Amino acid sequence: MSVRAAVVVTGTEVLTGRVADRNGPWLAEQLRLLGVDVAHVVVVGDRPDDLRSALGFVAGTGVALVITSGGLGPTADDLTAEVVGGFQGRPLVLDAELEQRIGAVVERLMARRGWRADPRATAAGVRKQAMVPQGATVLEPVGTAPGLVVPPAGGQGPTVLVLPGPPAELQGMWDAAVAAEPTRRALDGREELRQETVRLWRTLEAQLAATLREHEDEFAGLEITTCLKDGELEIVTRYAPAAQPRYDRLAAVLAEEYRDTLFSTGPTLDDLVAVGFAERGLTVATAESCTGGLLAGRLTERPGSSAWVLGGVVAYANSAKEQLLGVPRAVLEEHGAVSPEVAVALADGARARFGADVGVGITGVAGPGGGTPEKPVGTVHLCVAGPDGHELRALRLPGSRSAVRERSVTQAMHLLRVLTVGGPPA
Amino acid sequence: MSVRAAVVVTGTEVLTGRVADRNGPWLAEQLRLLGVDVAHVVVVGDRPDDLRSALGFVAGTGVALVITSGGLGPTADDLTAEVVGGFQGRPLVLDAELEQRIGAVVERLMARRGWRADPRATAAGVRKQAMVPQGATVLEPVGTAPGLVVPPAGGQGPTVLVLPGPPAELQGMWDAAVAAEPTRRALDGREELRQETVRLWRTLEAQLAATLREHEDEFAGLEITTCLKDGELEIVTRYAPAAQPRYDRLAAVLAEEYRDTLFSTGPTLDDLVAVGFAERGLTVATAESCTGGLLAGRLTERPGSSAWVLGGVVAYANSAKEQLLGVPRAVLEEHGAVSPEVAVALADGARARFGADVGVGITGVAGPGGGTPEKPVGTVHLCVAGPDGHELRALRLPGSRSAVRERSVTQAMHLLRVLTVGGPPA
Repeated sequence: MSVRAAVVVTGTEVLTGRVADRNGPWLAEQLRLLGVDVAHVVVVGDRPDDLRSALGFVAGTGVALVITSGGLGPTADDLTAEVVGGFQGRPLVLDAELEQRIGAVVERLMARRGWRADPRATAAGVRKQAMVPQGATVLEPVGTAPGLVVPPAGGQGPTVLVLPGPPAELQGMWDAAVAAEPTRRALDGREELRQETVRLWRTLEAQLAATLREHEDEFAGLEITTCLKDGELEIVTRYAPAAQPRYDRLAAVLAEEYRDTLFSTGPTLDDLVAVGFAERGLTVATAESCTGGLLAGRLTERPGSSAWVLGGVVAYANSAKEQLLGVPRAVLEEHGAVSPEVAVALADGARARFGADVGVGITGVAGPGGGTPEKPVGTVHLCVAGPDGHELRALRLPGSRSAVRERSVTQAMHLLRVLTVGGPPA
Repeated sequence: MSVRAAVVVTGTEVLTGRVADRNGPWLAEQLRLLGVDVAHVVVVGDRPDDLRSALGFVAGTGVALVITSGGLGPTADDLTAEVVGGFQGRPLVLDAELEQRIGAVVERLMARRGWRADPRATAAGVRKQAMVPQGATVLEPVGTAPGLVVPPAGGQGPTVLVLPGPPAELQGMWDAAVAAEPTRRALDGREELRQETVRLWRTLEAQLAATLREHEDEFAGLEITTCLKDGELEIVTRYAPAAQPRYDRLAAVLAEEYRDTLFSTGPTLDDLVAVGFAERGLTVATAESCTGGLLAGRLTERPGSSAWVLGGVVAYANSAKEQLLGVPRAVLEEHGAVSPEVAVALADGARARFGADVGVGITGVAGPGGGTPEKPVGTVHLCVAGPDGHELRALRLPGSRSAVRERSVTQAMHLLRVLTVGGPPA
């Protein structure tokens, strides 16, 4: 087993689900790239005893490195520096120069944003953020909070990297944290850990389970994990370099047995679609009803997407479908807004109004209300209109409003994948 | 301290960040509503030793209940039932009737979706899912995986609820899991835990820290946590019923000292905007450039939003701004696409084209490319055009492309809040 690490995410707002943790996953991926294997991510509230017990647990699993995120702010509930210092046998001391630097940052922040602040209050918060465990390496603040590298005072146990909670601050400090001498020492002896991904569209997990069982002996030494999300079955395999021939065998078996559904041996669906549009020099426009802009939002997530995304219309009201996209009133009246005919008219309308090569139309009943016996919640019609004609899909999707909306968008992305890069049917 | 619980989320796809955990937060909130306090959420990969050590840790913190999610699928990496059974001293046994019921579900699934499957493979997966710890209570599957309530064989230690990973399945099983006799026994003796939230828009955290310090003695017994996200400072306080007068005092202090920024004593920004539109009987349409449909997507997230959202245009290309929204070419040429003038024209265009009471226009440079010295990345212009005129904002937002896009949408939501329900300035 290579060098292992653990992540401790602090913050009652994360523990109670008010804020989604984005640091644990990001840190896990960065550590993997460094050849460090993450054993546990522990989320803990702003309570010193719970944080201490979490540190005790992960230290006891034999990890070389613990990374904490959050709890470095100016309010009294931010306790990480103090608790980690205590855990590592290093009491807090004031770093006077750091205090001045943080003070200057806070002043600039307030001036720029025109925020009101009472100087005494600001000074107390700044001082709190400048209290660091004795002997720790200070990582310069990206926002107002410094990061800390805290080796154990006694030399036994993991080194703790203390990083701020806001993802931009944590990520901005990462390179310095890894380059710090105590971190490098903790990570001595790590070895490469490879990771490969295969993606299947609409394959039953039970089928894959059987394939893997059949070849169990050949695949020993591979850590294969599967995850089904939105109709995509993702197979991620992690392995030491020595197991490369075994992975090659797995890849060959999957390519053979799942040639009808295997659409990627690496890139995500969104990667494929973006590259497909860019390479073929095509443009796209959307006309969305039930998905309310989520497809346009997903297509424009990517830097540079303005080269192929011309825009879209969210046509919730029927009048918008008529006036902005030219859906004939007669079609709406005869077939209803949720119908294959309207999906085609939406796609054609988007294509024509934006002058795009490809138009996408989506109309459906996302729920929870609005369903009828003929068109229950989850009924969705999609159409992609391209240079070579129309591709249509009629879906009956299970799940909540947000599940129906997300799955519809994913299905549309697969239609765009087939149109731009080909591969198994959408 | 009331009854406590811990959550153990399993799955290498969650640990490595390929899938965001939605179960930990949801479970934490459900437990809070039951008066159960969550101490830790531990995320662990599909490795039996790591799962066992996580169970050992949370059991050692003295919790009455442990809830696991995930690891109940048909593939060999799904190990939760077996590991929990071992931990609780209950070896797995085949539940033959359950096997038949799961088999019937899988057959229906395959027939409905037209998935190919080999009967031998399916049978092996079904049998695996029907192996349950001896003496455990089986919760009927919502998908294909059953849930389990597993009390400790020896009577000592927490009861473990084993729930499936897909959020819809986990949530669909929750009421039955809580109603099961061993769960109710584990939760005996819990007491009410109150939670209140106050939201400030654009307040410096250091300022709030000072206010809380000043009144430290009066607020003893309140667990106050603060979280800054997208310019909103959220203050969540948890307390026992006996501390109600202290919370009332905190609420009064905040209302007095932050009357210029306090916009909610409970509802989220999205709640306020939705209720505002519904109660005032106003309709809205959007015209988005850099946010690419995210504002429309956010406004339509809510069931029933079709009553007030007429639709929107995502006008990425300048030609789309002209043709779909009537932005005059002269304005685009004179001021550039990213300008207050174009934001106004977008808002007016959305309002006119959709026949809406309120139009929102957003144009900006989300980055990472496209910035200039005059209009660097993060420059965003917003306009809300309503029955009483225009409200404009010019922003310089820090951070990544997605941060700029999200913050722009939040700022637009605050403008809509002020227009529909009032409160402190957006």
